[in-house]
Amino acid sequence: MKYGARNKLRAKVTSVKKGDVMALVKFQVTEPGEMASVLTTESVEELGLKPGDEIQVFIKAIHVMPVKE
Amino acid sequence: MKYGARNKLRAKVTSVKKGDVMALVKFQVTEPGEMASVLTTESVEELGLKPGDEIQVFIKAIHVMPVKE
Amino acid sequence: MKYGARNKLRAKVTSVKKGDVMALVKFQVTEPGEMASVLTTESVEELGLKPGDEIQVFIKAIHVMPVKE
Amino acid sequence: MKYGARNKLRAKVTSVKKGDVMALVKFQVTEPGEMASVLTTESVEELGLKPGDEIQVFIKAIHVMPVKE
Amino acid sequence: MKYGARNKLRAKVTSVKKGDVMALVKFQVTEPGEMASVLTTESVEELGLKPGDEIQVFIKAIHVMPVKE
Amino acid sequence: MKYGARNKLRAKVTSVKKGDVMALVKFQVTEPGEMASVLTTESVEELGLKPGDEIQVFIKAIHVMPVKE
Repeated sequence: MKYGARNKLRAKVTSVKKGDVMALVKFQVTEPGEMASVLTTESVEELGLKPGDEIQVFIKAIHVMPVKE
Repeated sequence: MKYGARNKLRAKVTSVKKGDVMALVKFQVTEPGEMASVLTTESVEELGLKPGDEIQVFIKAIHVMPVKE
Repeated sequence: MKYGARNKLRAKVTSVKKGDVMALVKFQVTEPGEMASVLTTESVEELGLKPGDEIQVFIKAIHVMPVKE
Repeated sequence: MKYGARNKLRAKVTSVKKGDVMALVKFQVTEPGEMASVLTTESVEELGLKPGDEIQVFIKAIHVMPVKE
Repeated sequence: MKYGARNKLRAKVTSVKKGDVMALVKFQVTEPGEMASVLTTESVEELGLKPGDEIQVFIKAIHVMPVKE
Repeated sequence: MKYGARNKLRAKVTSVKKGDVMALVKFQVTEPGEMASVLTTESVEELGLKPGDEIQVFIKAIHVMPVKE
């Protein structure tokens, strides 16, 4: 099975909160590894991003997709 | 500064590839911590997600936003 | 009216579930037609995608926008 | 394998265009089936969505994730 | 025509940069009006959001869809 | 602080509705400024977008991220 997504993390579920339509699942990442971001080249230049830079990475929870084997 | 995003990771940039409009930035996560996913309650039930489950987590690179302090 | 989205399907609503803030709408696609995906060239190469390949396509429900004429 | 996504379509790749960073993949849906959208309850009420309604559905290509078995 | 999106702005295109696969379009908002954000209730509480608060709003360019009449 | 997002607006919160998992926050944009959209070059050509065009811009509320200083 191969996926068209750059970021694949292994994790363990720590809590599940089911709402009427949406649910919030929390998990602990057990194998983080390398990640990737795609943004405009303009943004990269404005941020001045280069190897070695320490950054923070934000991801809205809605964009995180769990898969269970 | 506070952000309306559940997932905030600290990372170090490992490579930057600038294309004509979009760029691909890779980084190594240095502090993974807890993460969160929002999905439909229906999907949670179909997956049978519960605490302790080992899962894989997919995130398209386009949804990852770097921030530099 | 012209839209900056590659994927336009015709469909018929089959159910509507209204939650406190979010709602889940299901529909049957009546005219599927051709669809398109944008992903990193790296992912395309890792997947080895080429014409004729049979694939599965995943879309989180949150990224699907209904329009009513 | 189970995925936290409501929309899973079977499709056949018809073309692949690789750019410097991003690529555009087109495919023909071979099994459309039922699909789902999550939106605000406010939007559902403004659209007046109910079973039987004929709608158009828009999805930006960037939100479509191919998976290959 | 009615759309399942909370944010609808009127704008005038100021520049168009076409890349090999993706393009970057800039525009000046001419009628901003009210906007809306959906996030986890947890995030709202962590941010302590309440009427009257002055905030900044971030949107990745990839999530902005132009429509032409 | 620098962000990898093209669109940064200043706004004032007008209402907050907390649901069981997700919340809806409305705000009035106080400084709209220039915005940007990334879409396929194909879509740009199909729409015939060029400087001076008057467009409408749609953004699903889920893609809007508030930040508080």
